[in-house]
Amino acid sequence: MKKYAFGVDIGGTTVKMGLFEKDGTLVSKWDIVTTKDNNGEKILPDIAASLKKKMEEEGLTSEDIEGVGVGVPGAIDSEGKLVGNAANLGWVEKDIRKELSDLMGGLKTVVANDANVAGYGEMWAGGAKGYTSVCMVTLGTGVGGGIIIDGNILAGATGAGGEIGHICVNPDETESCGCGLKGCLEMYASATGIVRLAKRRLAKDDAPSVLRKDDISAKTVFDGVKNNDAVCKEVATEFGRILGKGLGSLASVINPEIFVIGGGVSKAGSVLLDYVVDEFKKNTINACRNTKFALATLGNDAGIIGAAGLILNK
Amino acid sequence: MKKYAFGVDIGGTTVKMGLFEKDGTLVSKWDIVTTKDNNGEKILPDIAASLKKKMEEEGLTSEDIEGVGVGVPGAIDSEGKLVGNAANLGWVEKDIRKELSDLMGGLKTVVANDANVAGYGEMWAGGAKGYTSVCMVTLGTGVGGGIIIDGNILAGATGAGGEIGHICVNPDETESCGCGLKGCLEMYASATGIVRLAKRRLAKDDAPSVLRKDDISAKTVFDGVKNNDAVCKEVATEFGRILGKGLGSLASVINPEIFVIGGGVSKAGSVLLDYVVDEFKKNTINACRNTKFALATLGNDAGIIGAAGLILNK
Repeated sequence: MKKYAFGVDIGGTTVKMGLFEKDGTLVSKWDIVTTKDNNGEKILPDIAASLKKKMEEEGLTSEDIEGVGVGVPGAIDSEGKLVGNAANLGWVEKDIRKELSDLMGGLKTVVANDANVAGYGEMWAGGAKGYTSVCMVTLGTGVGGGIIIDGNILAGATGAGGEIGHICVNPDETESCGCGLKGCLEMYASATGIVRLAKRRLAKDDAPSVLRKDDISAKTVFDGVKNNDAVCKEVATEFGRILGKGLGSLASVINPEIFVIGGGVSKAGSVLLDYVVDEFKKNTINACRNTKFALATLGNDAGIIGAAGLILNK
Repeated sequence: MKKYAFGVDIGGTTVKMGLFEKDGTLVSKWDIVTTKDNNGEKILPDIAASLKKKMEEEGLTSEDIEGVGVGVPGAIDSEGKLVGNAANLGWVEKDIRKELSDLMGGLKTVVANDANVAGYGEMWAGGAKGYTSVCMVTLGTGVGGGIIIDGNILAGATGAGGEIGHICVNPDETESCGCGLKGCLEMYASATGIVRLAKRRLAKDDAPSVLRKDDISAKTVFDGVKNNDAVCKEVATEFGRILGKGLGSLASVINPEIFVIGGGVSKAGSVLLDYVVDEFKKNTINACRNTKFALATLGNDAGIIGAAGLILNK
């Protein structure tokens, strides 16, 4: 029986890597710089070299390694191929799974989209531990999603499964989302979306608020909520109304056991769920009303843990 | 190798049944009345008796039957149990799979929601043949859905997977949907929803239209479109705008290879797709823009065919 697996989380700046035991224990964690020159041609060779070096250091052979799991910031189909381009890496239409497996001497390799991998990690070892149907909601610069159905990532036909930030929640919106559409969930529930909501609220009248003094961010809004700032509470209410309603629609389609909320905005903590869960319950069908909610617990390690889980949690 | 399977489609009035060969050929098709007395306690025994009688008639033994697939109008979890109640049958919280299998002497039995089963049938032998990730959209009295991911039905944690009629497409709606929410897709894209759109349009001004003479139905609207009735075209445009945009949101979540449009409204034919597909393309993310569309082809047999497919298409 082989005993270890690697989890690899490829980002636009660094590649995070971890060596894990079969039960999920993290043995070693490190990172290397992402070299994006020449359409990112060095990224996979650099990763393979770094993994091999780690095996040498630890006295491990291929026999000891079950496989390599990888998360990639791009649309990845169910066979581990990149569909379209991964702008942050310089890659276009790439058979990542095969290339990395070949570089690793044929080692089992599984590749998926990074948001889906983070969701997988939260299911395996984080906020959704014990569940098999999970929707991870990542509230960062944008709104990402990772959907796991009966233990399997919903990759989608063109790798776009779980792109929940682009469901339309406001057909009346006049401004455009980064994707070119109007009224996407991401325009209101991401870190930048919350700033948008705050600015719109401030423009309405002259009500005093900490937001008129500080730089506005998702953090200042939720800090203000904790300090009882009335305007911050209004902004949080609007955020919760839109996100709760959006997830209410989503639940009737994929009907997960649990939503896990992660990403930078989720650092606000449980107060964030207070604003979202009630609105969710009011805006979903009966059969979905008891869907559970949890905060993500793995933070920046969700990527390497989930990637290792793709190999070990089978 | 066993050679046959039964497909059973339980409805509130009749139970449709079919005997199929392994390659999907329909050998025999019949139906029995649904007896709903005493919380529908006779429904499963009646079905079992009818299937056994058919086996006798055809000279088949249990050895010749691979299994029984069943579609049920209610929320069915991935283990074939009814969650909550099936109002049309009188059933509450029932282990349908086990009960019918026991009645059939332990024969393999698979049970799923009827809309999901219809989607499975269209994938196996209908409008989505050749695909494995499919979203069936049933435009009938309501809007139902059946989602198949990588060849498996998305049943959902509480059997509510694929209830796409209840995604919110109009947060400004003041009237309520049958489910109690406001602005559900079903309020505009079902047969009754199209009548609602037509009445709202007629109330706006006095523009002449066939709709002012005939009883309004989805059929009169699309017949009017074919006869170049300007008001009917406006109603169809509004219908297409709402449904196309709703499916655009859906695509970014589940990213199917193909949408299959069925149900009574789809009898309008390809003109219906003309109004939906362009709006879909305008209202979904790039990665989903080439999602295919087709009309359902199995009609009322989708249920028995899909149910048999649950057994034979594995």
